[in-house]
Amino acid sequence: MEKLQNGYLFPEIGRRQVEHMNKCPDAKLINLGIGDTTQPIPHVIATAMAEHCMALGTPKGYRGYGAEQGNKELREEIAQTIYGGLDIKGTEVFVSDGAQCDISRVQLLFGSNTTIALQDPTFPGYLDSSVIMGRSGSFDERRGEYAKIEYMRCTPDNMFFPDLSSVPRTDVIFICSPNNPTGHAASRDQLSRLVDFARSNGSIIVYDSAYAAFISDDSPRSIYEIPRAKEVAIEISSFSKFAGFTGVRLGWTVVPEELRYSNGSLVLKDFDRIICTCFNGASSIAQTGGLACLSSEGSKAIRGVVKFYMENAKIMAETFKSLGFEVFGGDNSPYVWVNFPGRRSWDVFNEILEKTNIITIPGVGFGPGGEGFIRVSSLGHREDVLEASSRLRKLLE
Amino acid sequence: MEKLQNGYLFPEIGRRQVEHMNKCPDAKLINLGIGDTTQPIPHVIATAMAEHCMALGTPKGYRGYGAEQGNKELREEIAQTIYGGLDIKGTEVFVSDGAQCDISRVQLLFGSNTTIALQDPTFPGYLDSSVIMGRSGSFDERRGEYAKIEYMRCTPDNMFFPDLSSVPRTDVIFICSPNNPTGHAASRDQLSRLVDFARSNGSIIVYDSAYAAFISDDSPRSIYEIPRAKEVAIEISSFSKFAGFTGVRLGWTVVPEELRYSNGSLVLKDFDRIICTCFNGASSIAQTGGLACLSSEGSKAIRGVVKFYMENAKIMAETFKSLGFEVFGGDNSPYVWVNFPGRRSWDVFNEILEKTNIITIPGVGFGPGGEGFIRVSSLGHREDVLEASSRLRKLLE
Repeated sequence: MEKLQNGYLFPEIGRRQVEHMNKCPDAKLINLGIGDTTQPIPHVIATAMAEHCMALGTPKGYRGYGAEQGNKELREEIAQTIYGGLDIKGTEVFVSDGAQCDISRVQLLFGSNTTIALQDPTFPGYLDSSVIMGRSGSFDERRGEYAKIEYMRCTPDNMFFPDLSSVPRTDVIFICSPNNPTGHAASRDQLSRLVDFARSNGSIIVYDSAYAAFISDDSPRSIYEIPRAKEVAIEISSFSKFAGFTGVRLGWTVVPEELRYSNGSLVLKDFDRIICTCFNGASSIAQTGGLACLSSEGSKAIRGVVKFYMENAKIMAETFKSLGFEVFGGDNSPYVWVNFPGRRSWDVFNEILEKTNIITIPGVGFGPGGEGFIRVSSLGHREDVLEASSRLRKLLE
Repeated sequence: MEKLQNGYLFPEIGRRQVEHMNKCPDAKLINLGIGDTTQPIPHVIATAMAEHCMALGTPKGYRGYGAEQGNKELREEIAQTIYGGLDIKGTEVFVSDGAQCDISRVQLLFGSNTTIALQDPTFPGYLDSSVIMGRSGSFDERRGEYAKIEYMRCTPDNMFFPDLSSVPRTDVIFICSPNNPTGHAASRDQLSRLVDFARSNGSIIVYDSAYAAFISDDSPRSIYEIPRAKEVAIEISSFSKFAGFTGVRLGWTVVPEELRYSNGSLVLKDFDRIICTCFNGASSIAQTGGLACLSSEGSKAIRGVVKFYMENAKIMAETFKSLGFEVFGGDNSPYVWVNFPGRRSWDVFNEILEKTNIITIPGVGFGPGGEGFIRVSSLGHREDVLEASSRLRKLLE
């Protein structure tokens, strides 16, 4: 714990936000920072959850503990609807209270001597939970890096995907695609090379597909679209972003039977034991909501919400592009990743906050490789996105 | 992970239950095993959650992420209603998705070289999560114990509370009161000695009060009723049992500001960081339910449910007593702890299952000190409790 640096990124931004509001109490703040959803949960899904709550108040409808791994029906529905054609079994799907929580539970699979590699920049949860689990050396202030952690740079130069020829072997490789924050969805070719790399090194890939529903082209939505990926990859995902479940809390993790330790024993068996010991199942109300999301009516409603956010993303991307900035993401992900060459990203963050009352995220918060960028979330209200666009044009033009 | 023995207790019982039902498909099974609640959630609480769900479906009522530590209002309400007069601040209360999950998160506070002591018998979660975190030596089949773990025997001879004069110093001491499975609520005197012991040894007490609402006498409902306990104790608790939230998932952990590491730094600060990194808040729906539980109408309804379960406990305790057995618990806890001297508890479990189709829990599942006992849960339906009582009388008379 002592090695862990600063506050966790999002609470730190929250702190600066409060500070700014104390200084400018009348400011009309627009938050395009933390990727929090703003569109209501589609009616059919909200109603299913409300009915579940009312049933819990009746002798007939009351249910107590469910299976720690999740309701059988939901596990099978995820396997069929999300992984249709990829031959994932319901018993390989573990329902969770969200991807962030499962990242830490997956970490419990590995001992503290485990070596890890992660994309730079990437979602800070992989790194911070690794440091808490005792996998890192000490922090180097100048480089902004922990010792004993492999940072795989992802920049425009390498199409935001690690150049694996220069990455040493590690036990675990964290990959997030579509990536948070760069918005880049890894291509089939990139992922095939990753799976080959992991297979030849005996590494386990922890693949975070929390933004897969936002992919609009033919990039893989799951690592399991890559042949033999089941032998090397765990996939973590979430209802948070595509279904607006950030506050409801629901996600899942797939641990395929094909994934074995070097002694041949099933990783699935250990993960099952962790889930039964350190977790007690996602809320039954959220699970009912998850089932409703995967129904045909629910899926249709959710596609509408995803489309809405992607229109926002287009507006934000166009705004920065028309001002002459280099912009990435926003086509397969709700995040727009904007390059401010030669500037420090906390300075850009502060300038935008002070001059336009807009919260973004400084790229360096996602790792030293994010320096010079900011991340802009498109998961906001349309009027906020339009207003932000107008304020930014005034500032940056 | 490799050191971890057998299945976790409750899944193992589930397995034997399925096996029995396959053998006797027409058996009318009564489950007095896993402490799962059966009474509906009081109407006022179910309605509050349903309204929250419907609001999530509207532009005005939609909310995304909440604070990782829980809603401010709920944190303050827990501090005031549960800990009234004990001067606990809302900022010291961390809302969780249940006690079992928080036991593992509390474990993340401590490094893998941490030494631990636990009651024997006790809830298996403390031990199993300690083994997963790498705190134990190897398992001794004959003794039924892990090396490097301090088992503090709790028997009728020591009033089910450890004889601290024979317990060596450890970094962490897990105490569950009212105890699961013995049903014993530690007395003020016992807890005062525990706090003194921890203070003089520089140990941290992890105190699980998940069954505190079932205390009917003047035993402390919180470790913080003991002077200076805040300097040495974390308290973990849950809405699961008293509010029927086993499937809804809601609990909390108190980390007082007075609790410091030996270098003077706040344990609260580290726990906050763990919560922000490894957790993302309890479901907002469950949190709304928690607030409704603590309202005056909700509290009143819940007291009725607790009273109902305690009447069940009395029926079960009387049943075994009238048959000549030595019975503990059942007055300050929904668990009845029955002594079968000279017998092995898995044998008693199997005999009761085979001859009466009743699921209980073999005492040894809670540690070697539970050998010769079975635990009977009173959280069932009244007709099941009465039917179980009648079947047991026939078997054991």
